Amino acid sequence: MNTITQQHIQVGEIANGLPLTIPVYRLQGNGSGPNVYIQANMHGAEVQGNAVIYALLEQLKHLTLAGDITLVPYANPIGCNQKSGEFTLGRFDPITGVNWNRMYHDHNALVQHCLAEHGEDSDQALITAFRTQLCQATEALLDAPAHTLTTGKRIALTLQKLAHQADIVLDLHTGPISAKHLYCPEYATDSARYFDIPHVLLIPNEFDGAMDEASFCPWWQLSSALQAQGRDFPVAVEAFTVELGSQEKIDLDEAVEDANSILSYLTHKEVIADGSHQPKGIKRYACALKDYLTYYAPMGGMVEYKAPLGGHIKAGDCIARILRMEQYLSETPLHTLRLDKDAIAILHFASASVNQGTELYKFFTNYYEL
Amino acid sequence: MNTITQQHIQVGEIANGLPLTIPVYRLQGNGSGPNVYIQANMHGAEVQGNAVIYALLEQLKHLTLAGDITLVPYANPIGCNQKSGEFTLGRFDPITGVNWNRMYHDHNALVQHCLAEHGEDSDQALITAFRTQLCQATEALLDAPAHTLTTGKRIALTLQKLAHQADIVLDLHTGPISAKHLYCPEYATDSARYFDIPHVLLIPNEFDGAMDEASFCPWWQLSSALQAQGRDFPVAVEAFTVELGSQEKIDLDEAVEDANSILSYLTHKEVIADGSHQPKGIKRYACALKDYLTYYAPMGGMVEYKAPLGGHIKAGDCIARILRMEQYLSETPLHTLRLDKDAIAILHFASASVNQGTELYKFFTNYYEL
Amino acid sequence: MNTITQQHIQVGEIANGLPLTIPVYRLQGNGSGPNVYIQANMHGAEVQGNAVIYALLEQLKHLTLAGDITLVPYANPIGCNQKSGEFTLGRFDPITGVNWNRMYHDHNALVQHCLAEHGEDSDQALITAFRTQLCQATEALLDAPAHTLTTGKRIALTLQKLAHQADIVLDLHTGPISAKHLYCPEYATDSARYFDIPHVLLIPNEFDGAMDEASFCPWWQLSSALQAQGRDFPVAVEAFTVELGSQEKIDLDEAVEDANSILSYLTHKEVIADGSHQPKGIKRYACALKDYLTYYAPMGGMVEYKAPLGGHIKAGDCIARILRMEQYLSETPLHTLRLDKDAIAILHFASASVNQGTELYKFFTNYYEL
Amino acid sequence: MNTITQQHIQVGEIANGLPLTIPVYRLQGNGSGPNVYIQANMHGAEVQGNAVIYALLEQLKHLTLAGDITLVPYANPIGCNQKSGEFTLGRFDPITGVNWNRMYHDHNALVQHCLAEHGEDSDQALITAFRTQLCQATEALLDAPAHTLTTGKRIALTLQKLAHQADIVLDLHTGPISAKHLYCPEYATDSARYFDIPHVLLIPNEFDGAMDEASFCPWWQLSSALQAQGRDFPVAVEAFTVELGSQEKIDLDEAVEDANSILSYLTHKEVIADGSHQPKGIKRYACALKDYLTYYAPMGGMVEYKAPLGGHIKAGDCIARILRMEQYLSETPLHTLRLDKDAIAILHFASASVNQGTELYKFFTNYYEL
Repeated sequence: MNTITQQHIQVGEIANGLPLTIPVYRLQGNGSGPNVYIQANMHGAEVQGNAVIYALLEQLKHLTLAGDITLVPYANPIGCNQKSGEFTLGRFDPITGVNWNRMYHDHNALVQHCLAEHGEDSDQALITAFRTQLCQATEALLDAPAHTLTTGKRIALTLQKLAHQADIVLDLHTGPISAKHLYCPEYATDSARYFDIPHVLLIPNEFDGAMDEASFCPWWQLSSALQAQGRDFPVAVEAFTVELGSQEKIDLDEAVEDANSILSYLTHKEVIADGSHQPKGIKRYACALKDYLTYYAPMGGMVEYKAPLGGHIKAGDCIARILRMEQYLSETPLHTLRLDKDAIAILHFASASVNQGTELYKFFTNYYEL
Repeated sequence: MNTITQQHIQVGEIANGLPLTIPVYRLQGNGSGPNVYIQANMHGAEVQGNAVIYALLEQLKHLTLAGDITLVPYANPIGCNQKSGEFTLGRFDPITGVNWNRMYHDHNALVQHCLAEHGEDSDQALITAFRTQLCQATEALLDAPAHTLTTGKRIALTLQKLAHQADIVLDLHTGPISAKHLYCPEYATDSARYFDIPHVLLIPNEFDGAMDEASFCPWWQLSSALQAQGRDFPVAVEAFTVELGSQEKIDLDEAVEDANSILSYLTHKEVIADGSHQPKGIKRYACALKDYLTYYAPMGGMVEYKAPLGGHIKAGDCIARILRMEQYLSETPLHTLRLDKDAIAILHFASASVNQGTELYKFFTNYYEL
Repeated sequence: MNTITQQHIQVGEIANGLPLTIPVYRLQGNGSGPNVYIQANMHGAEVQGNAVIYALLEQLKHLTLAGDITLVPYANPIGCNQKSGEFTLGRFDPITGVNWNRMYHDHNALVQHCLAEHGEDSDQALITAFRTQLCQATEALLDAPAHTLTTGKRIALTLQKLAHQADIVLDLHTGPISAKHLYCPEYATDSARYFDIPHVLLIPNEFDGAMDEASFCPWWQLSSALQAQGRDFPVAVEAFTVELGSQEKIDLDEAVEDANSILSYLTHKEVIADGSHQPKGIKRYACALKDYLTYYAPMGGMVEYKAPLGGHIKAGDCIARILRMEQYLSETPLHTLRLDKDAIAILHFASASVNQGTELYKFFTNYYEL
Repeated sequence: MNTITQQHIQVGEIANGLPLTIPVYRLQGNGSGPNVYIQANMHGAEVQGNAVIYALLEQLKHLTLAGDITLVPYANPIGCNQKSGEFTLGRFDPITGVNWNRMYHDHNALVQHCLAEHGEDSDQALITAFRTQLCQATEALLDAPAHTLTTGKRIALTLQKLAHQADIVLDLHTGPISAKHLYCPEYATDSARYFDIPHVLLIPNEFDGAMDEASFCPWWQLSSALQAQGRDFPVAVEAFTVELGSQEKIDLDEAVEDANSILSYLTHKEVIADGSHQPKGIKRYACALKDYLTYYAPMGGMVEYKAPLGGHIKAGDCIARILRMEQYLSETPLHTLRLDKDAIAILHFASASVNQGTELYKFFTNYYEL
């Protein structure tokens, strides 16, 4: 049985001076396979990833590990414990409004620096050199005078330092009310076939502050820069945001399914030497990020959501009805919303009350079978 | 077809000086039956009542009405529009924390006053006199200098003034995540059989600030006082809090069912002269308020709710599992919670993240078939 | 130099399973004087009490102590760390809305029980017996099954257990924007002369859930019950809520003044044997709680507060102006608010934006020099 | 006396279906001077601008106007009415966390388009053409299908449409606790001398979503593009963010001062033909935006702010003290924070409780007299 070790890492301090810490669990591989970093619950209400890490730990104890695996539940101790009414208000810093998953650092500037020094190195030496630079640059930001870092940046950088040490990075999230879906960098499309996740969003090489992007963008940049020089250098790191379903929900049986899906992918990547976890024979649909359609509430009102999540909508289908009881006699009290194109409904807003302009739905459009 | 009239009543003003208004819909009966007052959405996230009022209006247009019916959706314009993150933070005044449904006025003091003046009157005259006093006393509170009233009290009194004019009062609420249930004053137990609601909470004659209590307590007091004098005087007003299910949810089909349930009760009370709405042949269970058990989280953690709402739990059954990933190695990461008695699970907390001491579940215990 | 000891007491657990603890500092006296309990920051934004405890500790090290002194800063670790925007949202449980300072337990029921058993005891034996019963009853509530206690009740009871061990209880609070004032039980009016606090609210023997009431009410009840039997039994415990000024503010120089004020009172009570701390020769004004007037905003708008805090207002003076720019052309844009009686302005609302019915001011009326 | 007209413009709808409107006040000039747009209260807690608009209206009635003036108080009806505890939580959309003043549209892309069509036109014709394009492009965004716009974008675009019609745009804000300061585009430095504001931040030609940038950036881009072609084309629009002091505060006397400051600037710009308003002979200090230093809390704790706002700090001066009472015995309970360079303290955080990494102060560094 593999040994699991635990460490508590400090990511900040709260107003009464107490440290904010996160638990880090580690299993050691035999060194022959890639290393893995998995975190969960960066957004406070997105708790199912903690259950998936639980289910992973329960299985990883008994598997043959080629690479090291680091797992971080409760990645954000502020978001995790911020209540407002019954719900967890953990999507953004309650003081500043900044999304906790938009504060990772963009290390793309290191690419030219690395190529200047190590552009002639072998692939493996180049990977080692660049990884070292990413880790050191992250460390340097953390070591800057304490008064130069925001609360969220300090948490993000501490996690990012762990992530840069790995070849594979999985950031476990959920939508509000949501079907399972996967954010996958375009170059890693093939890997998406090994997750048991029917909906795959293919994202381009653009940094927008999230953990997955912070992990893969520098490597993709490096690869592109070398390709421009005529050298074929595969992207050395794969990183995904795994959207496990709905927030504010723990389902331990489903967590086992989600863990199996991740183990299937890790088996494919030869992190796990046992062949017991294989992908399910499900249909997978892909959609380019530019075709991921956000549908905002065209009016204020009370919403009945009608599009089934994961369901394939035909152009003209009713996706929602909006009830407005303020002017029952003089205005139409019930409005039917329709989408003008075929789509898959991926997620919808968590509440039935919406202002005009609230994000109501997200849809895959122009999707295709993967 | 019956005529519906609409009025907008001002219940306050917000910081930019704009009036807060509520829509009031009215249908007139032929004067031979009792009058009815129905309101919804006093708590901001409890929106299904608005859909039920919509479904009621659609049917009431076509029915034969013996009594007047007044319907107020969106009863609380502050709670209705208070967001915090995706959810509606409308259970209490965001400034003071006071529950919006605990601010109605206790008019029990009027009972002795009324008996002194009208204690020898006929039943009907006494009812008329007491109703007039209730309305006038409420009006007087509203007419006091503006600087003597809190925001919530002004809203509550404005609604209470409407309610005191009626013989039947229904306050439409929902639980957080909840099975349908009915708060019913003990003396009106028989009426509970005409709602299609399987769970009935029988509440005593104690004022705790809610609309239903504000409506029936003075009448129950009056009746008790006369009974003590040896005169049999039935409680002239019935008032119920109807818990329609879960908050943050609109279901228009279910709203038709809920409207039918209410119409069945109103048919029984001879407000509606058509006999088309009759109660369903379902099992109904009753529980005394003192046996309504609140189960608080015995530890902090992430909760998987296992007791099915409306389901009959046996003593020792698992009701929830609590996951704690902070000390996976040194503490038990997964705890099973069990109840030590038979119960019906009525509602549970809306979030999967709980502090120690968060209200986790409410259960009917010592329940019996009605 | 006196030894200070520190202990961390657990008062709950948060969602990630981490314990909520509070620091408890203790100094030991020579046993000849009364024991003292002082806590601060039960409401999250009311932080100045922590600075006062700091200033007290710095002095207490060097004083001659007749009684034991227990000091608890950061009494409420949830309230203390709950942000919403820039401000600390720590006045009530963010989930339930319940005021953290209304959850202490009412032990008045113990009085008859104690008298039945110990009514014939000597004063000192009766005091010892009743104190033991109060502590044991509090302990018993804390030892009840974990699923029977709310989050706030558990915090409150843990603090109350510490408080019942003392003869003198000081709960350090602040108003929103506020002059210094003191909540003082009527029987302890004389003691109010030893604090350097110009405004004294005299409160009756009615339990409303606060720490001071929880501490003195049972003893006052006991005293009253014996008085009814013709036995003169002075109230053995004094408890005060000390309102230090405004919330969201730390002023270390002022904290030294506030500490001196408390030390003056403790010198009077012979807790401190050095005579170095004496009350200042200031004017003190008293007001009965029933004459403590709350003035609610008579309209929504933007408020310019004009009554100086601690200032003596004459009937008809302007206390505030309300600006309403929504209807500049058709309504009066600027309204002057006046009070119709003489008063001392004690505190006002923390924000310039108010809804109709927001608590605007609190005033001493019918006040007199103490 | 000039006529003031009022219009209510709808900027959205809330959940109960009610329209969100803003009041727009207009005075007409004689057409010989530039047109002006002034708005206030885009951030909910920043209310003093409404009082300044009041003070402006009171004076503008009686002045000789060369240009039209449009004034919008309460620019953001959602932010203005969003309470959380006593304070106004109006800096960002409570649902998404997005800063209300980062949602204006970047029209820089129109510059090349305009030059292609009108690059040979006279200055005046070019100005007219570009203004028309800005207004039409903004209108087109507003006219897109309702389901394509977020709540905040709709509000921002509606205001931006008004602003693009003007030659001068003033967006009235406040800091949290703050000295008066002015955000001024570098090219308009000379104009800063006509405001009675001692601290001037010079900002570059970079769009970051704010109203001032949305107003002047396209014109500055246009000017730069023509300059690159060798044509001298002055930037036709001036736009400023005027920071009036602290949030959550109305001071009507200070508002008259602030109005005079704005009227002095408008006199300089020949909007007002009377010469009665002239700038005060105060010292003005300028600082480049890149030298505007944010100082984050280096540790969690309770803060005593010591640097006087507007005060000139010497390197090594104490700027704040942080109290930490959790480990009084084993850690330093009181920390002194110092800045390592000369600076002017412009603003500090609104609360005394901070997490590690909370924005504590903003300082002018490398400042110089203007």
